[in-house]
Amino acid sequence: MKAETRLTVRYAETDKMGIVHHSNYAVYFEAARTDFLRRAGLPYSEVEKRGVMMPLYGISTRFLAPAQYEDELSVVTWIKELGRVRLTLAYEVYRVQDGMLLATGETQQAFTDAALRPVDVKKAAPDLYALLKRCAGEGA
Amino acid sequence: MKAETRLTVRYAETDKMGIVHHSNYAVYFEAARTDFLRRAGLPYSEVEKRGVMMPLYGISTRFLAPAQYEDELSVVTWIKELGRVRLTLAYEVYRVQDGMLLATGETQQAFTDAALRPVDVKKAAPDLYALLKRCAGEGA
Amino acid sequence: MKAETRLTVRYAETDKMGIVHHSNYAVYFEAARTDFLRRAGLPYSEVEKRGVMMPLYGISTRFLAPAQYEDELSVVTWIKELGRVRLTLAYEVYRVQDGMLLATGETQQAFTDAALRPVDVKKAAPDLYALLKRCAGEGA
Amino acid sequence: MKAETRLTVRYAETDKMGIVHHSNYAVYFEAARTDFLRRAGLPYSEVEKRGVMMPLYGISTRFLAPAQYEDELSVVTWIKELGRVRLTLAYEVYRVQDGMLLATGETQQAFTDAALRPVDVKKAAPDLYALLKRCAGEGA
Repeated sequence: MKAETRLTVRYAETDKMGIVHHSNYAVYFEAARTDFLRRAGLPYSEVEKRGVMMPLYGISTRFLAPAQYEDELSVVTWIKELGRVRLTLAYEVYRVQDGMLLATGETQQAFTDAALRPVDVKKAAPDLYALLKRCAGEGA
Repeated sequence: MKAETRLTVRYAETDKMGIVHHSNYAVYFEAARTDFLRRAGLPYSEVEKRGVMMPLYGISTRFLAPAQYEDELSVVTWIKELGRVRLTLAYEVYRVQDGMLLATGETQQAFTDAALRPVDVKKAAPDLYALLKRCAGEGA
Repeated sequence: MKAETRLTVRYAETDKMGIVHHSNYAVYFEAARTDFLRRAGLPYSEVEKRGVMMPLYGISTRFLAPAQYEDELSVVTWIKELGRVRLTLAYEVYRVQDGMLLATGETQQAFTDAALRPVDVKKAAPDLYALLKRCAGEGA
Repeated sequence: MKAETRLTVRYAETDKMGIVHHSNYAVYFEAARTDFLRRAGLPYSEVEKRGVMMPLYGISTRFLAPAQYEDELSVVTWIKELGRVRLTLAYEVYRVQDGMLLATGETQQAFTDAALRPVDVKKAAPDLYALLKRCAGEGA
């Protein structure tokens, strides 16, 4: 499963170079993750209510071309790797107007309890694990 | 004319109180302004290309109830006052789920050139002025 | 009591006009409040550990001149009004290099419990109240 | 040369997990870069005035332990690789209180002109190149 999220670049996200400040891509990826889970059927706010957190322990981004104010962006998200204690998602950011690929990225997240201690998500939230497995195309 | 903009609260916009950090409302207002102008027929990126900037010289916000992660918000925007050197916009932020009013705000903007010197917008960008006047319901 | 906080403008805080984006002043005021309380003797992280929150219910800012990347800023903070359920702070932001006043602002905060219900701070955290009263120059 | 930058975690930088939102580390690295260049003798605002920009084309971060509101952080920065068209910096973020390593990161930047076209920095800004070479410990 690949999910697509549409975003419009906000003025506050630009910097004095006239382009989107790179720190915003981490926020775009996160908005895309939120969408990914919601469409998969389990909003992340629901996940947290069950006491499961998914803090990042790694992120990397490559910037290929700058985005600009009012650009409409399309962020494509998919599961690259799913384990019982961690999850790797991959992202591509396109400019909708001309289909140009602007950035690619990857995030590594741990499954933890509310105190940020690692948990086995298959035990802690079996429905979340099953759903992610389905999205990862590995069968339930 | 009143324009409505829909936003979904991002995780990065929350703070350790578990609610949307107040500084984000300024960004929500701005996203709503961007929408307001685009729908009125003149995207702000076009305005800037003509050398007209609209820096803020004042902003105020009242917070009535907190917004939370994944809340869908509706920002309603309208022109409160239009002059030849300045513009006051008003905003209301509602939570879509239950229609609750979460915040109200106002921004004061100046019309300037690219060097941030005040200009008479009726002279500097007559089409923008005419359009704003129409949106303000004061006739062209 | 007036407290002074020094900040250096970050690149990420600029926008495509080449100046500090206005939404950052709310963050500058907050950094200044954090300093104000720490110097008064009660870090805000300590206040929260006692279960007292101080969410904003109002903020207003006037922008007099723009700040730029790498500018060193001085934020002067003082108590404008102290009640048992609310607190108003005032702020002035100066550019250190030439002493120019760039912005002024005001925040209104409520005293609440962790569930964001109003509390009488004199009862809920008498030491915080006494300290604020001292800072406000109204005697303990 | 290694440069050290001190930062205090701002409330706005926390998220609903109660920790610093990961997107802020990109901003911390940038504040550290700003300091690095200023201490080396050439503030980045000066670099830009000569028409040389240094947009990021890559960033990666590993998060080892969370930072919290009011934590004082120490960001250590050094040059990992210097070329004539690009620069790689490395970062370590420590919590000052107990010396714990919280995060490590790396940024890749290109040297460009104001239109974001690649330039040979040795030709475009020989003093910047010489200074970076000295900081990289490779002799002038």
